[in-house]
Amino acid sequence: MKANVYVTLKAGVLDPQGETVKRSLHLMGNDDIEEVRIGKFIQIKMRNQGLEQARRQLEEISDQLLANPVIEDFRVELAEGE
Amino acid sequence: MKANVYVTLKAGVLDPQGETVKRSLHLMGNDDIEEVRIGKFIQIKMRNQGLEQARRQLEEISDQLLANPVIEDFRVELAEGE
Repeated sequence: MKANVYVTLKAGVLDPQGETVKRSLHLMGNDDIEEVRIGKFIQIKMRNQGLEQARRQLEEISDQLLANPVIEDFRVELAEGE
Repeated sequence: MKANVYVTLKAGVLDPQGETVKRSLHLMGNDDIEEVRIGKFIQIKMRNQGLEQARRQLEEISDQLLANPVIEDFRVELAEGE
């Protein structure tokens, strides 16, 4: 089965990488870009198991390894039926 | 208006960061994780404009700056009505 995990900086946490990208976009003439925030998009393949069990496991590994819960939020998305 | 850009490594391109995360997950006891691929999840706020025009602009900046088209694919997702 397949899952996606989205890791984003919490609101209020500065994103220097996103700021740099925004500045570059402005320099390229894209003045209408107001904010850029850069997070992670993690695609996972795992052995088939129950959806609830898989979700629990993915939330655990997101909290323990994929995200830094002090400054980041995460969202787990399970692709049903795969 | 808001947009999300997903940047992923092309199929066949090695992902050492994803491999390292997979190994760590196995060491933590998650033997059922078969593959981990790490991409970018970029959230953009921009001034309102037509959807088609916004999509064209976002695809251009993804191709020019956000992704490396040699090794990465990207997907633009526009949040309609925001």
